[in-house]
Amino acid sequence: MAEGDDDVPLILTWDDTSSGLLEEDENGAGNYDVVNNVVIPTPGAPDPRAQNSLQQSWEMNYQEAAIYLQEGENNDKFFTHPRNAHALSAYLFAHNHLFYVMELLTAVLLMLLSLSEAPAVPFLRLDVYVHATLELLVLAMVGFELCMKLRWLGFHTFIRHKRTMVKTCVLFIQFIEAIVVLVRQTSHLRVTRALRPIFLVDCRYCGAVRRNLRQIFQSLPPFIDILLLLLFFMVIFAILGFCLFSANTADPYFSTLENSIVSLFVLLTTANFPDVMMPAYSKNRWSCIFFIVYLSIELYFIMNLLLAVVFDTFNGVEKMKFKSLLLHKRSAIEHAFQLLVSRQRPDGVCLKQFDGLMRFYRPRMTARDRFLTFKALNHSGATMLSLQDFYKFYEVIGLKWKARRSGEHWFDDLPRTAFLIFKGINLLVKSKAFQYAMYLVVAINGIWILVETNMLNDGVSWTRVVPWSYIIFLTIYGIEVLLKITGLGPLTYFSSGWNLFDFSVTVFAFLGLIALAFDMEPFYFIVVLRPFQLLRLFKIKQRYRNVLDTMFELFPRMASLGLTLIIFYYSFAIVGMEFFADVIYPNCCNTSTVADSYRQINQTIGNRTILEEGYYYLNNFNNILSSFVTLFELTVVNNWYITMEGVTSQTTHWSRLYFMTFYIVTMVVMTIIVAFILDAFVFRMNYSRKNREPLDDPEDKKGIVFETEVSQTEALQTLDLYKHTLGITNLSSLQDMCVALERSGHSSLVFVGRRSRTKSDLSMKMYEEEIQEWYEEYSRTNLQPDETFHRELDSPEASAINSIN
Amino acid sequence: MAEGDDDVPLILTWDDTSSGLLEEDENGAGNYDVVNNVVIPTPGAPDPRAQNSLQQSWEMNYQEAAIYLQEGENNDKFFTHPRNAHALSAYLFAHNHLFYVMELLTAVLLMLLSLSEAPAVPFLRLDVYVHATLELLVLAMVGFELCMKLRWLGFHTFIRHKRTMVKTCVLFIQFIEAIVVLVRQTSHLRVTRALRPIFLVDCRYCGAVRRNLRQIFQSLPPFIDILLLLLFFMVIFAILGFCLFSANTADPYFSTLENSIVSLFVLLTTANFPDVMMPAYSKNRWSCIFFIVYLSIELYFIMNLLLAVVFDTFNGVEKMKFKSLLLHKRSAIEHAFQLLVSRQRPDGVCLKQFDGLMRFYRPRMTARDRFLTFKALNHSGATMLSLQDFYKFYEVIGLKWKARRSGEHWFDDLPRTAFLIFKGINLLVKSKAFQYAMYLVVAINGIWILVETNMLNDGVSWTRVVPWSYIIFLTIYGIEVLLKITGLGPLTYFSSGWNLFDFSVTVFAFLGLIALAFDMEPFYFIVVLRPFQLLRLFKIKQRYRNVLDTMFELFPRMASLGLTLIIFYYSFAIVGMEFFADVIYPNCCNTSTVADSYRQINQTIGNRTILEEGYYYLNNFNNILSSFVTLFELTVVNNWYITMEGVTSQTTHWSRLYFMTFYIVTMVVMTIIVAFILDAFVFRMNYSRKNREPLDDPEDKKGIVFETEVSQTEALQTLDLYKHTLGITNLSSLQDMCVALERSGHSSLVFVGRRSRTKSDLSMKMYEEEIQEWYEEYSRTNLQPDETFHRELDSPEASAINSIN
Repeated sequence: MAEGDDDVPLILTWDDTSSGLLEEDENGAGNYDVVNNVVIPTPGAPDPRAQNSLQQSWEMNYQEAAIYLQEGENNDKFFTHPRNAHALSAYLFAHNHLFYVMELLTAVLLMLLSLSEAPAVPFLRLDVYVHATLELLVLAMVGFELCMKLRWLGFHTFIRHKRTMVKTCVLFIQFIEAIVVLVRQTSHLRVTRALRPIFLVDCRYCGAVRRNLRQIFQSLPPFIDILLLLLFFMVIFAILGFCLFSANTADPYFSTLENSIVSLFVLLTTANFPDVMMPAYSKNRWSCIFFIVYLSIELYFIMNLLLAVVFDTFNGVEKMKFKSLLLHKRSAIEHAFQLLVSRQRPDGVCLKQFDGLMRFYRPRMTARDRFLTFKALNHSGATMLSLQDFYKFYEVIGLKWKARRSGEHWFDDLPRTAFLIFKGINLLVKSKAFQYAMYLVVAINGIWILVETNMLNDGVSWTRVVPWSYIIFLTIYGIEVLLKITGLGPLTYFSSGWNLFDFSVTVFAFLGLIALAFDMEPFYFIVVLRPFQLLRLFKIKQRYRNVLDTMFELFPRMASLGLTLIIFYYSFAIVGMEFFADVIYPNCCNTSTVADSYRQINQTIGNRTILEEGYYYLNNFNNILSSFVTLFELTVVNNWYITMEGVTSQTTHWSRLYFMTFYIVTMVVMTIIVAFILDAFVFRMNYSRKNREPLDDPEDKKGIVFETEVSQTEALQTLDLYKHTLGITNLSSLQDMCVALERSGHSSLVFVGRRSRTKSDLSMKMYEEEIQEWYEEYSRTNLQPDETFHRELDSPEASAINSIN
Repeated sequence: MAEGDDDVPLILTWDDTSSGLLEEDENGAGNYDVVNNVVIPTPGAPDPRAQNSLQQSWEMNYQEAAIYLQEGENNDKFFTHPRNAHALSAYLFAHNHLFYVMELLTAVLLMLLSLSEAPAVPFLRLDVYVHATLELLVLAMVGFELCMKLRWLGFHTFIRHKRTMVKTCVLFIQFIEAIVVLVRQTSHLRVTRALRPIFLVDCRYCGAVRRNLRQIFQSLPPFIDILLLLLFFMVIFAILGFCLFSANTADPYFSTLENSIVSLFVLLTTANFPDVMMPAYSKNRWSCIFFIVYLSIELYFIMNLLLAVVFDTFNGVEKMKFKSLLLHKRSAIEHAFQLLVSRQRPDGVCLKQFDGLMRFYRPRMTARDRFLTFKALNHSGATMLSLQDFYKFYEVIGLKWKARRSGEHWFDDLPRTAFLIFKGINLLVKSKAFQYAMYLVVAINGIWILVETNMLNDGVSWTRVVPWSYIIFLTIYGIEVLLKITGLGPLTYFSSGWNLFDFSVTVFAFLGLIALAFDMEPFYFIVVLRPFQLLRLFKIKQRYRNVLDTMFELFPRMASLGLTLIIFYYSFAIVGMEFFADVIYPNCCNTSTVADSYRQINQTIGNRTILEEGYYYLNNFNNILSSFVTLFELTVVNNWYITMEGVTSQTTHWSRLYFMTFYIVTMVVMTIIVAFILDAFVFRMNYSRKNREPLDDPEDKKGIVFETEVSQTEALQTLDLYKHTLGITNLSSLQDMCVALERSGHSSLVFVGRRSRTKSDLSMKMYEEEIQEWYEEYSRTNLQPDETFHRELDSPEASAINSIN
């Protein structure tokens, strides 16, 4: 029997005597003394049932430890930690990808419903009873999800969890409304549909969006302060402008105080400049000073100040967020550690316990990887992990393990002739000459495309034969891709982002060729993607590589910011549709100053009929897709007042409030986006400066790399341990490792674990010194050494409350 | 005879035996041994002529030390240091405010000439021979200034000084051109006038502009890189857009590749959005994706990246600039120190030498202040300043000295009754209740103005009687100002920026009242400045005080950035005028797509004739003032393409190059301005965070404060020293001090020196640790201890060359 088989957990989980899982083993519990909440086996022969019960309580601990670690990873507060067996089953039900996907799908479905609800997108229109029934179904699903959450959290925690409470209220309202719609068979003014994104935001997968929203709200107070300053100057200048220019009857912009304020608000966005200045300017040339001063103060100073204030707040918020995440993870690790140590050896976690944990934490991980992860954590080389070792848990958990290859190339094991051929290709592909030749080809291709396109001045016809230049260049690219794949091996080739880019562009170009050859009109857009091939030229210069790498690193955050923006769009689109659907049409708004933009008339000049179009009637709120496009145009800001004035002239003056609010909201989000890009970029530059790390690390040095050496005896021992003691059957990965070890002929084999570097890794290095301070501060305030620590952990209630503070 | 009267300078200045000043004293030099370039008096009776000669050589040293310190302050390189007596006199001629003002005036005059040169501002038009003669005169002045510089620098240094060489070349060209104009009596295409701002930039007073320009040029390389990326994407999308949309004949924006590129360039500035999208969008709703993707990549990502890169570079450049300035100052101090120490005591500077230096460095400073400055430097309390003390020179030099008053208030010395009255006013004025009452009045006034203005919906008539509310509020403000001035004393009152603001607004309001009462039309603008009174409300909140304080701190830099922008404007205005003068007029540009904006027609609707105006013909390049306004409009960017297209349709396609270049140049400057505001603001926030200094220091704690205590005996000794030894006659300030000391009855008096805090002080504190490193590095590389140091200083040539490196 392996060492430590009789170990008893230091802490027992869900050990409430009323409904704990241990009760099922009541008979077997006779062999145990329950002292201080801890079960100790009484001396005597190892009773198999006692063994069994012990085993079971260990399993319970593994599971709870895994849950703690999961909570640490997901930044879930510990007060939502499941307290008893029922809660646990609900927790497990609500915490797997199937449930998450369901959550996401229901939320997305609910949002997509607005495509079919009146005012619907024409080809997606559904009858009222259909979409109302659908909505009820989806809401019922959400209700079911909430019930699971209630079961898991318990009523008290559920009430205290703000986000869930808001969700419940919204669900309730929507439910009632859906029933009303179903009963009345007609839709009423349903502005509350604007709240639907709340369900999406609450999804597990939308954590990044939640973080963005939190960040936006945290940046709001200083933002609002400066905004008030901005509006204050605006009002002052509006009064001034009214006093100065209202005497001029040719000037519609300052005729009343309201017009004056609206004109200056629009001027803040520059959308009506210089038109707003022109009537006054044509009367008196010096009146331009008013506008220059206004724009200098508002646009060039205060608006930039706004960015500065948000940037400054953003910086602080990012750091605080990192700190709290870090300390939360540390706390999670401590909780998990206490659950994994045994009464006999309370200072360390041995492989058996670690393996047990990992089976819950990462069910898909192979036995070999679990073992290697343990080895990677185990710095000291002792048989057990200390708490200090265990603190590194989150750093090693994402590693992908691979045995270090003895040879460099994938073709090392091939016969001699093949080897030489591939070696040749490899050398060719890696040579500078080849690279620059390819750059040259790409450049020539670029010029070719430019010249060719320039010569097609009479429009492009797609039905012509495929141009031969296209075929030639595509052949060259195709050969290059093939050479590279054979020379470097597919694995190495596809591990580089740039190669992936090359590959996909080339494949697309081939698809485009096929589309051309077979005359498939709808796919012609693939052909015009060709010029993107030219992006490869930017690999030449260091700075571009940095910029593009940063761009790819930023991409996930950018995407989540984009999603956040879309959520705002959705809410505004719903409100816009409820109030402004169908108010805009060709030749509407004749009473407004922007009537020209909405005009659509057939003018007859000579014997030709020309359709004179203002086109702006296309920017309407008639369905959700049009609304999105209209809102995007409002975001870009230029000429947004034409849409605003058009809608205003068809409805009331108060409509302006909608547009102005939208402008301010998008301004907040856009400022945050700018601040984010600034912060991320400056952070990266500082990082590489501070660590004197050249940003042009070769491909294979990037990311986080751990190495661990496994000797043959160790491997066999582990295999033995797994097979006989732990009773795990799926050991093929470990067996493979043993076989590989034997084959290699060496007594040991080095395994390399890799993962890509995350922002958190960078932050760890950037704030190295401060992190030490945080840890010290944390351990001072949270944990008095030893006894308090154990006492706290003994009572889950106390520890939960503690972790909230 | 006071101690140290026989001291001999360690180093003698301009001591070349051929033409040195000492030669004039050849007769008296008999009493000296010239050993190792140093004059030592031979033992014997103090010969008055030898005394005299010694005195003279000290004076020479004082002067040179003062010049070194001046060079340190102005960041002049030491290789321009005058080498001999002729150079010295030219240097002194070229380094005083009279000369600087002349330099500035000639440069400004030269630039203003373009107001009168064709195409001239109508009422300033001058005949060709008048303005050409004027130009020649001004250029002759510039030539004279350059000659003085040549005399001072010597031919070799002159040639090596790049800026001066450029100036010389430009002068030469302009001179020839002016003569040609005078001879031909007509102006030719004088694009070189765009180079005139070079003379302004070279002025001593425009140092800040030079620094800005340098910073802009230093930020250029990364900027250009990202710009290329931007343009690259633009071209790719232009090709795509051409392929996708050129088939649509209703779409003028993508009809040719050139149009396509121009449309996307304008779209980058958002100026033609959403119009550019509309024709395609009306054909196929999905085409909006093209524009959304383009704008997301270019506008929202790469443009922000541009800002990030510039911001990052800017940060680094600011720090390096500070470092080099600091080290340059330190080096200047070391040079000066070596000139002030005597052979007998080479480790310190005593009061006599320091006073001599200060008489040259700050001729206007009183004897008392020179003495107090010496005391402030003298930390150790010894009789002499060590080099360490002397390093603080630039920190104490700007201090304004005042005896610390024994009493708090200005009215302490008044009779009892008056004292009590003023004390009462003082308490009232300082009370919170009074302040908030005033805020309330201001707020009511604000609402009043708003309501009143809103009720004047039929325009404002200025000839009416003065509204009584205006008189009431003004009376309240007047009383407040009077109370504050009497309660706090005028000095204390006017030392606060906010009070100054209150005061000036109130005075303006009074002037406005008078203007109203006497019906003076042209001054009515003063009346409408009233609402600015409301700005006082922002004193209430901490953040606004910070923001507004930062605003005032930033103001000088902002002004210099504005000036830099104006210089760019000037050059572009000249080029614009040379090429596009008079091409724009009402109803021009009928061939372009923007013809509507240039239309001016009398339409008859019914029996009314309405002038329909497009007004854009006002945005022309017909004279320099119009050009400036047009360029400002181009800077604001909105609708800039209307001007561009108008000009293009009247000239050639190549005109677009001018507008696009202008856009890119202003983009650079604007990005720098944004980066500057960001940097300054974030710097200030970090500073106050790092030093845990509350940003709301009470008024009197702001700025840099030094204190020094002067005892009665010390004062009398100093007076004696000055009177008898140094033979300085203007000692009233010192005598006053002695009298004040006697009167006060105390044995000593504390003097307080104050100055406002500059960016350099903040930087000193921010980079505290790094500064130590810089100093160490500097002393390692530049100065080997003692002997090398002296050797270097012995030979001015070597030291000059050394300081260049």
